[in-house]
Amino acid sequence: MSTIKAGIVGGTGYTGVELLRLLAAHPEVELAAITSRSEAGTPVADLFPNLRGHVDLAFSEPDGKLLGDCDVVFFATPNGIAMTQVAELLDAGVRVIDLAADFRLQDAGVWQQWYGLEHACPEILAEAVYGLPEVNREAIAAARLVANPGCYPTATQLGFLPLIEAGLVDDQRLVADCKSGVSGAGRKAAQATLLAECAESMKAYGVAGHRHLPEIRQGLSRVAGHAVGLTFVPHLTPMIRGIHATLYAHLTDLGHGLDMDLQALYETRYAAEPFVDVLPAGSHPETRSVRGANTCRIAVYRPQDGDMVVVLSVIDNLVKGASGQAVQNMNIMFGLDETAGLAAIALVP
Amino acid sequence: MSTIKAGIVGGTGYTGVELLRLLAAHPEVELAAITSRSEAGTPVADLFPNLRGHVDLAFSEPDGKLLGDCDVVFFATPNGIAMTQVAELLDAGVRVIDLAADFRLQDAGVWQQWYGLEHACPEILAEAVYGLPEVNREAIAAARLVANPGCYPTATQLGFLPLIEAGLVDDQRLVADCKSGVSGAGRKAAQATLLAECAESMKAYGVAGHRHLPEIRQGLSRVAGHAVGLTFVPHLTPMIRGIHATLYAHLTDLGHGLDMDLQALYETRYAAEPFVDVLPAGSHPETRSVRGANTCRIAVYRPQDGDMVVVLSVIDNLVKGASGQAVQNMNIMFGLDETAGLAAIALVP
Amino acid sequence: MSTIKAGIVGGTGYTGVELLRLLAAHPEVELAAITSRSEAGTPVADLFPNLRGHVDLAFSEPDGKLLGDCDVVFFATPNGIAMTQVAELLDAGVRVIDLAADFRLQDAGVWQQWYGLEHACPEILAEAVYGLPEVNREAIAAARLVANPGCYPTATQLGFLPLIEAGLVDDQRLVADCKSGVSGAGRKAAQATLLAECAESMKAYGVAGHRHLPEIRQGLSRVAGHAVGLTFVPHLTPMIRGIHATLYAHLTDLGHGLDMDLQALYETRYAAEPFVDVLPAGSHPETRSVRGANTCRIAVYRPQDGDMVVVLSVIDNLVKGASGQAVQNMNIMFGLDETAGLAAIALVP
Amino acid sequence: MSTIKAGIVGGTGYTGVELLRLLAAHPEVELAAITSRSEAGTPVADLFPNLRGHVDLAFSEPDGKLLGDCDVVFFATPNGIAMTQVAELLDAGVRVIDLAADFRLQDAGVWQQWYGLEHACPEILAEAVYGLPEVNREAIAAARLVANPGCYPTATQLGFLPLIEAGLVDDQRLVADCKSGVSGAGRKAAQATLLAECAESMKAYGVAGHRHLPEIRQGLSRVAGHAVGLTFVPHLTPMIRGIHATLYAHLTDLGHGLDMDLQALYETRYAAEPFVDVLPAGSHPETRSVRGANTCRIAVYRPQDGDMVVVLSVIDNLVKGASGQAVQNMNIMFGLDETAGLAAIALVP
Repeated sequence: MSTIKAGIVGGTGYTGVELLRLLAAHPEVELAAITSRSEAGTPVADLFPNLRGHVDLAFSEPDGKLLGDCDVVFFATPNGIAMTQVAELLDAGVRVIDLAADFRLQDAGVWQQWYGLEHACPEILAEAVYGLPEVNREAIAAARLVANPGCYPTATQLGFLPLIEAGLVDDQRLVADCKSGVSGAGRKAAQATLLAECAESMKAYGVAGHRHLPEIRQGLSRVAGHAVGLTFVPHLTPMIRGIHATLYAHLTDLGHGLDMDLQALYETRYAAEPFVDVLPAGSHPETRSVRGANTCRIAVYRPQDGDMVVVLSVIDNLVKGASGQAVQNMNIMFGLDETAGLAAIALVP
Repeated sequence: MSTIKAGIVGGTGYTGVELLRLLAAHPEVELAAITSRSEAGTPVADLFPNLRGHVDLAFSEPDGKLLGDCDVVFFATPNGIAMTQVAELLDAGVRVIDLAADFRLQDAGVWQQWYGLEHACPEILAEAVYGLPEVNREAIAAARLVANPGCYPTATQLGFLPLIEAGLVDDQRLVADCKSGVSGAGRKAAQATLLAECAESMKAYGVAGHRHLPEIRQGLSRVAGHAVGLTFVPHLTPMIRGIHATLYAHLTDLGHGLDMDLQALYETRYAAEPFVDVLPAGSHPETRSVRGANTCRIAVYRPQDGDMVVVLSVIDNLVKGASGQAVQNMNIMFGLDETAGLAAIALVP
Repeated sequence: MSTIKAGIVGGTGYTGVELLRLLAAHPEVELAAITSRSEAGTPVADLFPNLRGHVDLAFSEPDGKLLGDCDVVFFATPNGIAMTQVAELLDAGVRVIDLAADFRLQDAGVWQQWYGLEHACPEILAEAVYGLPEVNREAIAAARLVANPGCYPTATQLGFLPLIEAGLVDDQRLVADCKSGVSGAGRKAAQATLLAECAESMKAYGVAGHRHLPEIRQGLSRVAGHAVGLTFVPHLTPMIRGIHATLYAHLTDLGHGLDMDLQALYETRYAAEPFVDVLPAGSHPETRSVRGANTCRIAVYRPQDGDMVVVLSVIDNLVKGASGQAVQNMNIMFGLDETAGLAAIALVP
Repeated sequence: MSTIKAGIVGGTGYTGVELLRLLAAHPEVELAAITSRSEAGTPVADLFPNLRGHVDLAFSEPDGKLLGDCDVVFFATPNGIAMTQVAELLDAGVRVIDLAADFRLQDAGVWQQWYGLEHACPEILAEAVYGLPEVNREAIAAARLVANPGCYPTATQLGFLPLIEAGLVDDQRLVADCKSGVSGAGRKAAQATLLAECAESMKAYGVAGHRHLPEIRQGLSRVAGHAVGLTFVPHLTPMIRGIHATLYAHLTDLGHGLDMDLQALYETRYAAEPFVDVLPAGSHPETRSVRGANTCRIAVYRPQDGDMVVVLSVIDNLVKGASGQAVQNMNIMFGLDETAGLAAIALVP
C-alpha cells in the first residue's frame, strides 16, 4: 500500500499536537500539510519543541488546494469550523475525520440546541459515521466522513456498552460521574484553567447540562433501541491528561442481571478489541496506566453483591479520547492494520 | 472562663499537625501535652517547621498522668489505639475526642467486621456521641466522649441530610461518588501515595467496600428512621487536601420531591449553621474554596428538571473532615463560641 | 487607636484577594473600599468564594472620593497605574502602599528602560520608600508612600543581606537562582500558565534580563555602598505559591569570610526580626513551611568548607513577597504592632 | 544481526519499568528475563498495568544461569548490588550495563567515601567505561561493562562540556543548580516523597554534599585535564519526571571567552549528536519537551553580555538520565543504530 497523505486543519491545540506526535511516528503516513491562520509560516517545532527533529513542517495558510491533494484531512478545529469546509474536501475525494463536535449529533436540531449554531450542512450530517470503532467498525471502513467521538463519550460508552447491549440494567437511571484532566479544556488562554486556579482543587462543572450529554445518550440509545435516561456530571481534576469515568447502573430482574457473571460479560465483549482492556476482577484502573496510549481500561464491580453495577473506565482524553481514536479511524478507513502507529506503551510513572 | 488545657495523643500525622495549627491559634486553649512514642523528646517544630515560633512544646512519652491533668484529650492515633486508653482518661474526668474510627460505629460487631479488631470497650461505645454537630449538637454538648466523624462521612452526610430528613428521595439507591486529596491516606511512608505514583493520575479504590460505608449508612439510617441503601465509591485525586462528594438520589412522588424547591430546602436547613454554606443556585463549589477552613460548601441541582437530584459537597478533609470538626466539637463540649479558633479564611489560590 | 480605613485599588488579582484575606482578619482594619472597573457591582465573595461570610463588600468603580476618605490605599494593580493616581491621594492625606513596581526603582530612567513606560511622577518617586522593613523600618514608619518590594527581590535580598553588610563576599559575582510558583505570573488568562502547559514541567525564563534584576541590584548596592554584580535566573515551578531562592557567593579573604561563623552571623542579624527565621545549621527550608505565612525562612551553608556560600531563602510570594509585606508595612506606618493580622501559621500539608 | 537477548536485574523500580517500556518496543531486542526476589512469580504487567499487552514476562528469582544466557544484562538495582554479581556475568561472556552507581567512580576510595561501602571488585572497576556516549562513544563500543551515568551528572556534564573543552571558563568556580522531579528518588515507600509532603513545595537537599558531586567533578576534570571546582545544589521539584540544570560559569580572558560565539560553539559541538539538541538563541527549554524522550535540550546565554555564562540543560531523568541512556549504550556496544528503539517523541502536554 502506498503512503497516505494526511493534512491537519487547525493544528495549534492539544488534539493537533497529539495528532502530529502520532502521525509523525506512523509507518504509513506522510504529513503533507498542517494549517493555522494565526501561525502560518511558523515551523511546527517552534511552537511545540518536543517535535524538533521529528516534524519539519511549518504551519501554512488554510488552503483548499493543499488539503484537496491529501488522502485524509483531520479537523482539529473549534466546533463550527469543519461543517463549513467539509463539503469541498469530500467533493475533491478527500476523506475527512472531524475531531470537533460538528458531525457527532445526527439530529441537526439537537446540535443547534446544544452548540448554539445552525448546522451548516445537515445534508452531509446524514452520511457522517460516528467513529467509535467498537460499535461502528464496518460503517467507519466505508465512510467518507467520520465524526470522532468526544472524550467523555468514549470512556462512558465503552464502559456502559456491555450492560446496555445485554439489557441487564435499568437504562432510565444511568449515572456517569466523570473526571477529566485539564487538557480537555484546550490550549486557549483562559483564567479557569490556569495552574494557580485549578491545581490543588477539584470541582464539578456543567452539572445543569454539558454538550457531551446528548452525544452519550444518542450512542447508548442506539444500542438500547430506545431512549435511555442518563445523569452526567463532569469534574475538572488537577492533572493534565486522563479521564476516569465512574458509571452506576441498577441490575434488573428482567434482564436476569443478578445472575450474570459481569466479569465474563465484559471480557467476552471486548476480547477481540485491540484497544479495550478489561482488567481482572478487583482491579482499580489508574488514568496514568493509559497516559499517551490509545487504550481504554475497564473494571466492573457489584459491591456487596447488591443490585448496583459500578464500572470504572479510563482513557487518555487526548489519545483514545481524541487523536489516537482519530488515527484508529483512519487506519480502519484505509484498510490498514487498526493498530498501526498506535502501539506506544503508556508512560508510567 | 478559664483556659482549657488540651492534650494530643499521637500528634505526628496530618490530623495531629492540623490540630496543633488550630489549637495554637485558639484563644481559649493551652496546649498542655502532645505525646508520641517514636518522637518523644523532639520539639514539635523540628518535625513541622511551619510551627516554629508558634508551638514550643516537645513530644513527650505517652503518660497517663500528664494527659489526666488535661481538660480534653484528642486522639490523633491510628484506629484501635484510643479504645484501649479512653477508660482511664474518662475516669480521671477528662473529656475525650477521638479522631480515629474507634467509637464511630455504635455496633461493636459491625466495627469488628470492618476494622478487623475486637472492640476493646463496647461498654463505653454506648455512651460515645457521634460528633457531627449539624445533627448531634445537644448530645455533643453533654458528652464525655465524642467520636469525630470520618472525612468522607462528613461531606456525604451533610450533602444528603436535607433530602433524607424531608423524605424526598428513594433512600435505597443513594450514590456517593467521592474524590479525596492524598493527605487522607495519612503521613505514613507508603508506595501508593508517593508523588511519582499518584500525581497526574486518578483512580477509584475500595470499590468492593470501604470502611466509611457503614459509617455513612449508620448516620443516614438514623435520620431516615430505617436502613438506607448506599453505593459509595472513593477516588484518589492528585491534590493534597480536599474532598469533593458528588451525590445522586432519585426524587420520589411519595415525598412530593418533584414539587420541592430544593435550593430553599437546603438554605433553610443550614441557615443557622456556622460551618455549612449553601451556594447560590447554579454554583460549582471548588475544594480550594475551603482549603484550611472548617467549612462545608454545598450546591444542589436537578439537571434538566428531571427526577435526579445531584448534590455537590466540598470540605477540607483535614479541617471540617477531621481536626477542625474536632475543635468545633470541643467548643461545643466546653460551652465556648462554636466558631472560636475556627475563623480562618480558606487559602486561595 | 481607632480603626484604620483601608482601600484597595484593583483587587481582582492574586495580590488583591490575598490582601482581602489578610485585612479581613486584621484586628485594627476596616475594609472601606475595593475598586475594579471590570467587576464594579459584583460582590467580592462572588469572585472569590473563599471570602463568603468574611467579606461583604462589593467591587466599586474607581472613585477618588471613596479612596480619598481612606487612611491607607493599597494598589494591587498592573504596573503603570499607581503612578497616575498617587498624587491625588497623597494630596488628600492618604497614605499609599503600591504592590506594583511603579515606585521600586529610584531612577526614573532605569524604570523606563525596564518597564517601557515614561514615569508619570518622577518628583514623587524621590520620596517613595522601598518597603523592605528589615532594611528600611524607620523610613517606612515616616513614609507617605511605600513601594512594596517584588517577590524575588524580597527572598533574594533577605538571603544576601548579612553577607553584603559584613563585606564577606565577592559582590561582583553574586548568583541568584530563583524558583517561583505560578501564582507569581498573576491571575490573567494566559496560555503559558495554563495547568496543562506548566504542570509537570520546569523552565527558566527571562534569563536575558528580568525586571526584578535592577530592583535587587539597587537594594544590594545601597547596602554595599557600591554597585554590585548579580546574575539572576528565575524559574517557573509547577506549584501555586512559593519562592525558593538559592544564592551563591564567594567568600573573600579581605572580609575574613573564611573565618566567619556564618550561622551565627545570620542568627544575630535576624534575631529581632519577627518575620525572618534562620533555621538550624544543616536545614533545608521547604516553601510549604511558609505557605500562607508572612515568614522568610533561611539556611546558610559552606559546602565542603570551601569558599562558596550557599544561602537558601524561602517565602510565600503572595504573602512576604507581596500582600503580607504590604500589611507589615501598613502596621509600621500606623504605629501598630508589626505582627498585627499576620500571625497565621503556614498551612502544612 | 540476530536479536539481542536482554536481562534485567531488579526491575521493580522506576528505571526498571522504564527499561521495560523501552526494550519492549526495541526492534532488535528480546526481553529474556527480569529478576526480582520480592516479586518472583508475579507477571510484570500485574505490577505495571501500562505494560499489559506489551510484556508477557513474569519476574523470576535471581538466577545466574538465566542471566548468563543473555547477551546483555542491565542492573536496575540499588547501589551495592551489581558489584557483587558482575564478575560472574562477565566471565560468562555477558555484557553488563549498570544503572546504579557501583562503577561510576574510578577511584574505589572515593566510592567508599561517598557510598559508605567497601567496593567489592576494584579490579573490575578499572575496566568499566563511563557510559556518557557524547564523551566516551568509542570506549563504550568496546566495553564489556558500562557504568551508566547518574541523572544530574548527565544533564550537568552535557551542559558544561563545550565550555570546559574549549577552556573558556574559570573551572574552579562552577555552579550547578539542579532541579529534579520526584521519580529521581525512586519507587520505595518513603515519607519524604509522599505527594502530600512534596507537592506544592520546593526544597534543596544534600547541599552539604550529594553523591553526584564527585561523579560530575570526575567527568569534568577528565575533560579539563585537571581537577575542577564545582558547587552542586540539587532541588526536589513537585513533578514526576524531568531534570532542569541551570549552570553558571565565568568566562576568562585567558580563553578568549569574551570573544566567543557561544551559540555557535554549542551547535558545533553537538551537531552530530543524535540526542543533544541545542535550541536557538533566546530559548528556554522546558523539561516537558523531553518527557519520555532520550533527548537533552540545551540553551546558552550571556546575560547583559557580561562575563557570566548561563547554560540551561534539560533531560528526562528516567530516559536520557537513566534507562534511555542505558539503551543508547547497549545500541553502541552491539553495533546497532544508536537511535534504535529511542525515537519516541516527548509527550506534550
